Amino acid sequence: MQERSSVAELAGTLRREMDRYSAGEKLPSSRLLVERHRVSPVTVSRALARLAAEGLVVTRPGAGVFRAGTGAAPPERGDTSWQEVALSADASADQVPRSVDAEGVLATLAEPPPGVIELSGGYLPANLRPERALAAALARAGRRPGAWDRPPVPGVEELRGWFAREIGGPEGSVTAADVLITAGGQSAVTTALRALAAPGAAVLVESPTYPGLLAAARASGLRPVPVPVDTEGVRPGLLEGAFRASGARVFVCQPLFQNPTGAVLGPERRAAVLRAARQAGAFVVEDDFARHLAHEDAGPLPPTLRSSDPDGRVVHLCSLTKATSPSLRVGALSARGPALERLRAVQTVDSFFVSRPLQEAALELVGAPAWPRHLRTVAARLRERREVLLTALTRELPGLPVAHAPLGGYHLWLRLPDGSDEDALAGAALRAGVAVAPGRPYFAAEPAARHLRLSFAPAAGGSEIAEGVRRLRTACDEVLG
Amino acid sequence: MQERSSVAELAGTLRREMDRYSAGEKLPSSRLLVERHRVSPVTVSRALARLAAEGLVVTRPGAGVFRAGTGAAPPERGDTSWQEVALSADASADQVPRSVDAEGVLATLAEPPPGVIELSGGYLPANLRPERALAAALARAGRRPGAWDRPPVPGVEELRGWFAREIGGPEGSVTAADVLITAGGQSAVTTALRALAAPGAAVLVESPTYPGLLAAARASGLRPVPVPVDTEGVRPGLLEGAFRASGARVFVCQPLFQNPTGAVLGPERRAAVLRAARQAGAFVVEDDFARHLAHEDAGPLPPTLRSSDPDGRVVHLCSLTKATSPSLRVGALSARGPALERLRAVQTVDSFFVSRPLQEAALELVGAPAWPRHLRTVAARLRERREVLLTALTRELPGLPVAHAPLGGYHLWLRLPDGSDEDALAGAALRAGVAVAPGRPYFAAEPAARHLRLSFAPAAGGSEIAEGVRRLRTACDEVLG
Repeated sequence: MQERSSVAELAGTLRREMDRYSAGEKLPSSRLLVERHRVSPVTVSRALARLAAEGLVVTRPGAGVFRAGTGAAPPERGDTSWQEVALSADASADQVPRSVDAEGVLATLAEPPPGVIELSGGYLPANLRPERALAAALARAGRRPGAWDRPPVPGVEELRGWFAREIGGPEGSVTAADVLITAGGQSAVTTALRALAAPGAAVLVESPTYPGLLAAARASGLRPVPVPVDTEGVRPGLLEGAFRASGARVFVCQPLFQNPTGAVLGPERRAAVLRAARQAGAFVVEDDFARHLAHEDAGPLPPTLRSSDPDGRVVHLCSLTKATSPSLRVGALSARGPALERLRAVQTVDSFFVSRPLQEAALELVGAPAWPRHLRTVAARLRERREVLLTALTRELPGLPVAHAPLGGYHLWLRLPDGSDEDALAGAALRAGVAVAPGRPYFAAEPAARHLRLSFAPAAGGSEIAEGVRRLRTACDEVLG
Repeated sequence: MQERSSVAELAGTLRREMDRYSAGEKLPSSRLLVERHRVSPVTVSRALARLAAEGLVVTRPGAGVFRAGTGAAPPERGDTSWQEVALSADASADQVPRSVDAEGVLATLAEPPPGVIELSGGYLPANLRPERALAAALARAGRRPGAWDRPPVPGVEELRGWFAREIGGPEGSVTAADVLITAGGQSAVTTALRALAAPGAAVLVESPTYPGLLAAARASGLRPVPVPVDTEGVRPGLLEGAFRASGARVFVCQPLFQNPTGAVLGPERRAAVLRAARQAGAFVVEDDFARHLAHEDAGPLPPTLRSSDPDGRVVHLCSLTKATSPSLRVGALSARGPALERLRAVQTVDSFFVSRPLQEAALELVGAPAWPRHLRTVAARLRERREVLLTALTRELPGLPVAHAPLGGYHLWLRLPDGSDEDALAGAALRAGVAVAPGRPYFAAEPAARHLRLSFAPAAGGSEIAEGVRRLRTACDEVLG
């Protein structure tokens, strides 16, 4: 972290000093910059690379670094307007021009500006990640014999076997042969949607649901149809109606600690969901993203839907990313029958396979004695953080009662008074120094009410969460009155 | 490699011994297996995992490994026939039911059976990969501060800058800001196709071209339209005609050492291709896969099309995989204008971002003094291998003259006598102990002639290549007479 911030600092200093040099003039040597700014050569070279990327300086190998030639003619960067036609021209008469909207996704992936407390993101902070174990596992994985060979296309056998065992169920009901390794959860979602539904088709999604699903569905030409969720998960009566009304053959759901509501699908509803899908001849995509994020006080977890699935109804997906690091991009899809063949074909054609050293590192990580310890630590810390957030909200914002305190995952779904301006509130919060997510991008259509999603994972610790809520109160006072 | 083969051997032995145990009976302990078979504990655990994946044994943590319960009722794995309806039901009246065909791709990704010489694949063998440098770079990347944070969504800045410099062109014409890091070349192709063309649209491809492109286009719902290639690359007159006839707004080409023909797009044709695209209001996707695979005697390489592209016509893609290892899945897309925005959105929505440690390892690898040395070694070895292959073909198969000896890449495109049965020949070759690729999957429609693609990269060395050609002769004698 230190190295990164010193790169930004040095780049800032050099940027401010750029006026001192005329176009084409040579900058001081790297050695001199190292001495003058008391930083490492790596920092200097990274800061200069950043300025070069911004077009402020030009690097000539062997000669040095020069202020970019603003005096000379700028490089020819002509008019790209024709692209707007080319990118939309394929829309047939009954379609609006295509566009792919990544905004909702980018909002959850972006790092907030320095000094801003993050109650918005979807990843664990550095102090909850198993960073040492990850580094050691990756180092060993890269040195293992055969590490740089092709992996088997569907994934390393033992890792597939591990994912199969995690899914659970009667002996032999899910085996390694039923599992495909993917490059993280979002890739698994995209592959599942593209495999199971053709462009133009409807796909049922929970309402609210996470923006990554809505964006993936739309980018694949699918029409997400919302089915409301309450504190016990999706509402079966509405699900049946949605299957009938839309003709959809896919329903995507998160039965465990749904994002953003934290709801767990109740026991009767589990059976009802599978029954509704069977009646509709449809698949259930079970996005099991939060099984490793159960809080210490969650009690025994319900089994996966996939584990009691005789006729290949359920396509299960999960990922190691959420409980480890955003950069351990290893996940898995599991299915049976023709659907498995289709998933395998789509994934192979899209991206061939996942880097073998990453797979081997994942396998070593989850096979080590430290893995259950890590999960216990995460479970304990998430419970603490949830309690800090709930307590702070009760103290600072008693006017916004929390309907549902989740026992897993790391999101809290906060209902706002009717008519609140979510975007104005999120903007005011950012100015007050806390990043929160407005509820709108979580709905496939018009939302029934206004919301904020607060995440208690990314902050460094409890006191930062409490301070974030104090800042949010400032913003609420300003916007909601 | 040794470890992997001992796993296979032990698994084979145990598989043969399985009859000795009744269903549910406990197998000898791992410790005993280690002693009895004189292998490492890792080998034992991997071999058992393999048998478990095959359903032959069952592992009960803490209790041991047991022969699977063939006596008991098998786990319920019901009928998945309903899926065939669900997976095809969305086809509208004018469409055939969807299917995604990965066969052509899998043929180039599969490892041949033991003892078979590989003249078919697309990757460097272990002895030409920079394995030590890769292992060291990956180990350092995983330990770097911030390595397990989110990377910037479009990729690590310095790596984007390196790819921008590799593309070349006048100072500032391609910058880091124009580059997106992707998970290898195939992901880049898929992202480009999905971003630039809507389902149902035509896309022009070279004929022949690599099966990965045809499969990616079809999986995205696009119609690949073939445009013939000769020894100077794509034929501009036919390209203009194809743009007019198809209404396509995308042409995908490999101007440098085209796969499979090895052709380099001639200087006049470069201008003609860009002119034809401009007239059609279309993009040129420049798949620059072989720039690091020029042979020692190739001479100076033509610049990228992207480097002289004022109006954002060319979308450039490349990958580090081909010159390093199939598991260094790091590539790049470069574009300008709305197309860059679209590419970025598609990639973000599909898969978020590429693992940061992999990106950092790639950056370290290409920044090290050993990198140009590695490329020189590859260039020298590929030239030698090409010559061995050409000499062996002249000696063994004088009836199959080679039209074009490529100066880069690692493929030789061999024309067969009219009416030859490619599949029968490839089958006979495999029985004779050499894997070669039949030409059919390289054509979007009916091929004008019969071909084989021979690859001189994957074999361990020259003598293996020569032996491979001797075996191919046996097959030719058998099938072609």
